[in-house]
Amino acid sequence: MNVKGLTLDKVYQAAYVLKEVARKTDLIYSPHLSGRNQVYLKTENLQATGSFKLRGAYFKISQLSDEQKKAGIVACSAGNHAQGVALGATNAGVKSIICMPDIAPISKVEATKALGAEVRLVKGTYDDAYNYAVELQKETGATLIHPFNDPDVMAGQGTIGLEILEQLDDVDAIVVPVGGGGLIAGLAYAVKQLKPDIKVYGVQAHEAASMVESYRQDKLVNLERVSTFADGIAVKNPGDLTFSIINEYVDDMLEVTEDQIAAAILKLIEKQKLITEGAGAVAAAAVMFDKIPLEGKNVVCLLSGGNIDVNILSRVITRGLITSGRLTTIVVTLEDKPGQLVDVSTAIAECGGNVVSVHYEGSDANMAISSCFLRLNVETKDFEQIEQIRRTLKDKGLTLID
Amino acid sequence: MNVKGLTLDKVYQAAYVLKEVARKTDLIYSPHLSGRNQVYLKTENLQATGSFKLRGAYFKISQLSDEQKKAGIVACSAGNHAQGVALGATNAGVKSIICMPDIAPISKVEATKALGAEVRLVKGTYDDAYNYAVELQKETGATLIHPFNDPDVMAGQGTIGLEILEQLDDVDAIVVPVGGGGLIAGLAYAVKQLKPDIKVYGVQAHEAASMVESYRQDKLVNLERVSTFADGIAVKNPGDLTFSIINEYVDDMLEVTEDQIAAAILKLIEKQKLITEGAGAVAAAAVMFDKIPLEGKNVVCLLSGGNIDVNILSRVITRGLITSGRLTTIVVTLEDKPGQLVDVSTAIAECGGNVVSVHYEGSDANMAISSCFLRLNVETKDFEQIEQIRRTLKDKGLTLID
Repeated sequence: MNVKGLTLDKVYQAAYVLKEVARKTDLIYSPHLSGRNQVYLKTENLQATGSFKLRGAYFKISQLSDEQKKAGIVACSAGNHAQGVALGATNAGVKSIICMPDIAPISKVEATKALGAEVRLVKGTYDDAYNYAVELQKETGATLIHPFNDPDVMAGQGTIGLEILEQLDDVDAIVVPVGGGGLIAGLAYAVKQLKPDIKVYGVQAHEAASMVESYRQDKLVNLERVSTFADGIAVKNPGDLTFSIINEYVDDMLEVTEDQIAAAILKLIEKQKLITEGAGAVAAAAVMFDKIPLEGKNVVCLLSGGNIDVNILSRVITRGLITSGRLTTIVVTLEDKPGQLVDVSTAIAECGGNVVSVHYEGSDANMAISSCFLRLNVETKDFEQIEQIRRTLKDKGLTLID
Repeated sequence: MNVKGLTLDKVYQAAYVLKEVARKTDLIYSPHLSGRNQVYLKTENLQATGSFKLRGAYFKISQLSDEQKKAGIVACSAGNHAQGVALGATNAGVKSIICMPDIAPISKVEATKALGAEVRLVKGTYDDAYNYAVELQKETGATLIHPFNDPDVMAGQGTIGLEILEQLDDVDAIVVPVGGGGLIAGLAYAVKQLKPDIKVYGVQAHEAASMVESYRQDKLVNLERVSTFADGIAVKNPGDLTFSIINEYVDDMLEVTEDQIAAAILKLIEKQKLITEGAGAVAAAAVMFDKIPLEGKNVVCLLSGGNIDVNILSRVITRGLITSGRLTTIVVTLEDKPGQLVDVSTAIAECGGNVVSVHYEGSDANMAISSCFLRLNVETKDFEQIEQIRRTLKDKGLTLID
């Protein structure tokens, strides 16, 4: 059935073409995400370039005529699409220019260059870079590769659906991250043609839920503003082609919060030894936090990408340590006399805490002139140990703030 | 050829038995570790329980008589072996008691319990826990599962060698982390029986190089003290059986430093989206830092485990951010007058730096009475940006310390 230019034949063709360049990523059973259901992880974060985007971009490029290939390609992206297009183009021997907003992390700019693309840094936001790319396309006659609203791109992403069906019998549901909708449109289309009983669910970040809103209101909704650390799915304007297909084939669309995304990233690190970016972890977050009725089902969570900036990763981990009782800040008021630091550090050491930083302040306008305070960051085992440390300090007659 | 109780038949038998419980982990090509050679990663960090240890433990347990199984098993471990034995025993319906030193991270203790083992926390070091386990074994008649010095355990680990040969034609070399030597002994034995031309190299942490020393001195060397954050291979007393096999089959033994291990962990996170623990990353570190002559070769790096404590991971990442110019500390001396903080923060913002913490100190005995200093932690893009920030601050007439 041809829906908006998408056919099952096209998806099969994409699977054939992609053998040259894309990895058939592993499907890994996750006992740690499984509770009342059996959860499997489709690890597209381990795909070449660190995300699924390579699939759609490469297949799209393979479909260009020789003349089009000669004229080169242009794309706009702040991240994963850039790397997918760059590798796809380089492997196909096609020249690519990728327009990126100049706020893009240097790691992504460098990775895109390393894959053989010419990068143009455009001052401003993604929209500015996109407008520049459109101009460039007009000037040069190159082909602009859209990140999602294109049947060839969707067909490429849809190959993930074929792989899942091959890797696991008796799939009941597939949960998929959604930005502009290219991945879920291609995947849902392919899966529903072959096994209509399998449920397909889409997940967005609450702060960038343009496709969720469109699905609910049954019409395309553009957002003025999106704000999520899951930058890979921070899309203001979802695609009209992708929206039509999602409307027809997707069973439900859901949202997760920033904290839920962070918790999922940390759990995937600790329990599955996998790095996911914010966008890559939303499906896992939806399953972890029971957003979907999946009891007793065989569920596949798509981990769509792993290109997280290390600074962000570091913050996610620190936040996770604090919320799970493995890092704490203790502020103690001391009388300004010798030996007090010894008392405090001894008490913490006795309880098994590990002091990682100390900040000692002798003067504070809000305090009695003979007082001072100590702020300590302490590595701990769990909340019980934190409580034990706090109790021990109080038992020694010290005053804790907070 | 039967060497110290190890036969190729036994390795094949182990492969057959392990189908029930162990994942055939993916072999992933790594363009980012490849330079003058082609590097592939055998991802045993994605094995069930987060390390290869499950293989040896499960096969060993499968070889026990019904009577032995009824009497239960005992093991001693601070980490991966604990989880491998626990899952192996539980899957085989055997009761297991795991003795762990009470300094073991709570995450590993909880993970071991969750896999169905009874955990006994023993006050002191690994050696204390081991002595306790030996006593317990004598009292109860249970079987003690040694972490490496046992032909069945080695045969289980050797199955990784069979998988690598199946997953990649034309392997030239396999690089393997080494602690007590069970993994490399089993793997080298199996691989060399089938394809004697493949080179097998072992890697240890410089601060815990007991097997390297034994190999060099051609006799078993015990170390008084080991000190590495790669706790999974911090072994003072290597095995005599494993040593004999390593001596016969391994082509060379090498060392890497703590900083090299940390750099490898960070690179595997950023480029491959994989979490490895210190022990799991030593082979990758050896290849990254050109410890082995491998030009033009097809090289398999074994990533043996991913069970890194999140506190340690957080430090590795922070250190990596600093050493790669993405996090810096700037200390500025100010005159104690209004508006100076505005000057500093404006300068940093103009250069695109992102201030993540500020520490303002009004009084310091070493400074002029009218001065104070500011310590800022700043997220940056690269060393060039750090230099630009420092220059801008100096141009504004501010004095930087360091």
